[in-house]
Amino acid sequence: MPRTRSALPATGPVRLGPDSRAALRPAAVGIDTGFWQARRASNAHVSIPQGPALLEAAGNLHNLRLAAGTAAGEFQGAYPFVDTDVYKWLEAAAWQLAKAPDGDLAPDDDLAAEVGRIVALVAGAQQPDGYLNTWFQLVKGGARYKDLRWGHELYCAGHLIQAAVAHHRATGSGELLDVARKFADHIDSVFGPPGSGKPIDGIDGHPEVETALVELYRETGERRYLDLAAYFVDRYGHGMLGGEAYCQDRVPLREATNVEGHAVRQLYLLAAAADLATETDDAELRTAAERLWHAMTTTKTHLTGGLGAHHEEEDFGDPYELPNERAYCETCAAIASIQWSWRMALLTGEARYSDLIERTLYNGFLAGVSLDGERWLYVNPLQVRDGHTDPGGDQSARRTRWFRCACCPPNVMRLLASLEHYLASSDDSGLQIHQYVAGRYASDLAVIRAETDYPWHGTIALTVEETPAEPWTLSLRIPQWCREFRVRCGQETYEGPVTDGWLRLERTWSPGDQVVLELSLEPRLTAADRRVDAVRGCVAIERGPLVYCLEGVDHPGGLDDIVVDTTRPLAVKHRPDLLGGVTTVVAAGSRRHLPDAGWWPYAPVDESPDSPQQGGEPVELTAVPYYAWANREDGSMRVWLPTS
Amino acid sequence: MPRTRSALPATGPVRLGPDSRAALRPAAVGIDTGFWQARRASNAHVSIPQGPALLEAAGNLHNLRLAAGTAAGEFQGAYPFVDTDVYKWLEAAAWQLAKAPDGDLAPDDDLAAEVGRIVALVAGAQQPDGYLNTWFQLVKGGARYKDLRWGHELYCAGHLIQAAVAHHRATGSGELLDVARKFADHIDSVFGPPGSGKPIDGIDGHPEVETALVELYRETGERRYLDLAAYFVDRYGHGMLGGEAYCQDRVPLREATNVEGHAVRQLYLLAAAADLATETDDAELRTAAERLWHAMTTTKTHLTGGLGAHHEEEDFGDPYELPNERAYCETCAAIASIQWSWRMALLTGEARYSDLIERTLYNGFLAGVSLDGERWLYVNPLQVRDGHTDPGGDQSARRTRWFRCACCPPNVMRLLASLEHYLASSDDSGLQIHQYVAGRYASDLAVIRAETDYPWHGTIALTVEETPAEPWTLSLRIPQWCREFRVRCGQETYEGPVTDGWLRLERTWSPGDQVVLELSLEPRLTAADRRVDAVRGCVAIERGPLVYCLEGVDHPGGLDDIVVDTTRPLAVKHRPDLLGGVTTVVAAGSRRHLPDAGWWPYAPVDESPDSPQQGGEPVELTAVPYYAWANREDGSMRVWLPTS
Repeated sequence: MPRTRSALPATGPVRLGPDSRAALRPAAVGIDTGFWQARRASNAHVSIPQGPALLEAAGNLHNLRLAAGTAAGEFQGAYPFVDTDVYKWLEAAAWQLAKAPDGDLAPDDDLAAEVGRIVALVAGAQQPDGYLNTWFQLVKGGARYKDLRWGHELYCAGHLIQAAVAHHRATGSGELLDVARKFADHIDSVFGPPGSGKPIDGIDGHPEVETALVELYRETGERRYLDLAAYFVDRYGHGMLGGEAYCQDRVPLREATNVEGHAVRQLYLLAAAADLATETDDAELRTAAERLWHAMTTTKTHLTGGLGAHHEEEDFGDPYELPNERAYCETCAAIASIQWSWRMALLTGEARYSDLIERTLYNGFLAGVSLDGERWLYVNPLQVRDGHTDPGGDQSARRTRWFRCACCPPNVMRLLASLEHYLASSDDSGLQIHQYVAGRYASDLAVIRAETDYPWHGTIALTVEETPAEPWTLSLRIPQWCREFRVRCGQETYEGPVTDGWLRLERTWSPGDQVVLELSLEPRLTAADRRVDAVRGCVAIERGPLVYCLEGVDHPGGLDDIVVDTTRPLAVKHRPDLLGGVTTVVAAGSRRHLPDAGWWPYAPVDESPDSPQQGGEPVELTAVPYYAWANREDGSMRVWLPTS
Repeated sequence: MPRTRSALPATGPVRLGPDSRAALRPAAVGIDTGFWQARRASNAHVSIPQGPALLEAAGNLHNLRLAAGTAAGEFQGAYPFVDTDVYKWLEAAAWQLAKAPDGDLAPDDDLAAEVGRIVALVAGAQQPDGYLNTWFQLVKGGARYKDLRWGHELYCAGHLIQAAVAHHRATGSGELLDVARKFADHIDSVFGPPGSGKPIDGIDGHPEVETALVELYRETGERRYLDLAAYFVDRYGHGMLGGEAYCQDRVPLREATNVEGHAVRQLYLLAAAADLATETDDAELRTAAERLWHAMTTTKTHLTGGLGAHHEEEDFGDPYELPNERAYCETCAAIASIQWSWRMALLTGEARYSDLIERTLYNGFLAGVSLDGERWLYVNPLQVRDGHTDPGGDQSARRTRWFRCACCPPNVMRLLASLEHYLASSDDSGLQIHQYVAGRYASDLAVIRAETDYPWHGTIALTVEETPAEPWTLSLRIPQWCREFRVRCGQETYEGPVTDGWLRLERTWSPGDQVVLELSLEPRLTAADRRVDAVRGCVAIERGPLVYCLEGVDHPGGLDDIVVDTTRPLAVKHRPDLLGGVTTVVAAGSRRHLPDAGWWPYAPVDESPDSPQQGGEPVELTAVPYYAWANREDGSMRVWLPTS
């Protein structure tokens, strides 16, 4: 069966080691058409190609030349981690280079040359002993590792390592991997526990290098990298960085009861914990990761999958503290959540991790990039008021061409370029489909072709293309949001059982066998646990995996006096003309004209302007998918809609 | 009538100039006993006396000695405005020195000496040409006015001037006033519009000096100071500081439609605008101030009178964006709001400004200091969740002994020490009582003695002690929150009319005449305008001017699953044993035991764990005044209570 499978991407960000305890292995997927193909085409042909010019304009590449001594001038940029913008772009471009040369996503002609040019810039900036960080080399006079709390030196190394692993996996070239290993070896020579003989016992204020080091171990087989990652992960939470939750230093992961502090830092650290639990026999670390995932999703996750409740310190906030307009929900946190959840899915085999991945992919993550691939959101609020005064800057509620702190755009690029990695898995029993896309799924033993217009339509037609003669199990994830589904398989129809999220079809398959999964996409009104104070008395519109929102542009007169009527049915309207083609949900609502309350907006309950006797003018509400908001004009938006 | 009136404080922060357009003049008030006397006694005998040691420990006084060349060492503190902690303490101590030497609030024995010592330190730190800012003198090598956006040099000058005016008014000493005038003269020699021949056309990133300069004009009669204030006020909003709302530089006040940016900056600037409109014939500025006050109270004020919705940038946020747990509501913003509103009350004669002052004094302001006068809140949230993880630091939801940025504590001290200034006024027609306290109110023509246990009881008995033979008008503010009241005056009873908040009693008075005002203090449930998303489906408990809250310490099992029953009556319970003596409000509620929702806290409406068929265990709710929260233990707290 070489033809089909060799045309599929055979690689991705996570490759399990030989001693891995993972329940599942990533399977190869090729996306042909449909929803994600369009998003990935923007990524391949707009976002990634624009990267080098943007990195040049922002000075990131200039800094590398300065460090190499091949240019003169001043360091550009305000942060010690500006190199990571380059590394994340390189990782994205590397995954792109792995795409089939004859498909829609074929890399642009000059991409390989651009990657080569920028890899050479990175290599040129590296110091003879392996150290590489242009900020410290150029601005801080080479004073290495003096400011671990804020310096981001190991964080930068982590992104370099991830880019190098991707470059090696995608192209076979060892050029960037050599740079990364040299830096990793340098770090390994410097950092270690007391008694190790290493000069520094310390950790970076921003976890990232840990998951990268595990992957470097997986790529090279060099056990030292795994051990170094394990050492770092366990040094968090002991006050070495001052003891603040912000830096993941308040409590060790093994003892923590909920996620806390800076969301991206927490999530990258947890991705590393999942990696370590996968590659070692560390049941305690696995239990901690499972406990924290459950606590996070139960108490600290926005409906969109977005994470992080505070702008201040980019913090998770308290349990059930999930504001709408001040939701932080950094695009990078959505990406980190997907990375962590995928590692948990592989480790445990449980479908709920891919439930969260689906929700995040279609909503909290995808909102971070405009439909045209040219503009970005750093934060992803669930509400923007009529007449919102936007302060501008990185944390604007307006899409922005690039950021002063440009962490999110290349992070989106690398996830979209490696998306096929997160969609399916295999184990000795067969193939598991985690996410439904139009294309091919391939394990070591079988190839399945999928036709679907998901998430707009709920029918997924799967055809066995290649199969062994022996029986094996095709496992379909029945999404957590789905209340009704049906599977037709030959003459048989199933509506269950669903075990821990999986519908498992074990049989002897023949090429040409068809399985048709129909997921009911009835639009629904969703309410939140009542402890989520921010959305009391509100509902959200959802359909399939998509969270919907109202935009001001569709509702002349604004959104802030609108009430949704939950007793009237929701209607579905396919709109190929709108936002690149979306299915809208139409709801009945009314617009309340509020009396002038004088100068004080609070009144005894019986005099309240909100008392129920007030009528309202009927208004048709048009909800669009949240991921597509702010692609027409800047304006108001609401996910949660008052019901009275 | 010299005896009585000479025993009253004859002065305060605002003294109108000879050409003032104010409708009202501040009247003298002496507080004898009751609610505010207890709070002021803590201020006089705990907070203010502890100031010098705290300023010594934090390094503020050390910095002054360093600048004077009388000590050696390093500058202490992290901010360019640390001198203002000293100035605000001096202002508080100066008002304290004006207190009658035989009363409860008599200044402590050594206070005059402490003030003298610290005034001398300030004078010693001043440079020969009048400049004074220890940060710039010591840390920035004397590079003056190079960083107006962040430098706070004029802001510091403003607080110095206010302290000096207070010191002069309270003690008659010109020692600190000379220092302040010398600095003001220096500033006047440096700053001016293009064409003025002054070297710098600029403004400070933090407005403050403007209102101080107006007061310096009032104190000295020197018109230049008024003109300089007018120049500064009108230079904001033209992009001289980069154009950000944060620095009040996005739009000129005269064109602004709502308050915006950093709340304290906005409010100090508006206090200056009110001052200028009062001292000049600037109708446009008055109109702008009136418009902005209306917009602020209608759309951006928390129930407590607290202001500022965002921790990030200490920003006002959007209209109706009034979060609970993330309310910023800086104590300084409450103080600035009172300062601005009092100037508006004097300017316009309208009672609504004192309505807001009352609400702020009893709630958003007073919560900023502990009952014992020793611990402080910088931010004043309206909710703290069960199990809240407090990050500590200045913006903690826990009372703190002092802050790294210690702006609030001495600001509270100066307001409490001059509180009598904000309570009553006079005009040619008579005396207006804005706030009800136990003590004496005195205008130029009459003295009224007040007996009351307000706000615990609603009866205020007013006795005319001194009066001219001619008729005059006693005006009583009927609070905006009050739905039922009665006034007995001799044989007559009035229940109105109330004109713009005032009940006016015009007659010929005789000594011994009594007026008894009875304000109904029925506790009430308050709802918010429905555009305040954060409190949808909630009510707050209020009684008289007091906003109430639940505290976790009174509700074993916590607050986050409690629902209040709005159909059951509220009961009042006086508790002399509790929190220094408070009236509690007891409400009926229930505690909902929530089912385990699995790992995802969102569900279709009909499956929602919040659906109404769920019962609950009855629970008695004990509400305490918001100002008194967090005086027993750190824990959860809620002002707004879910109703279902």
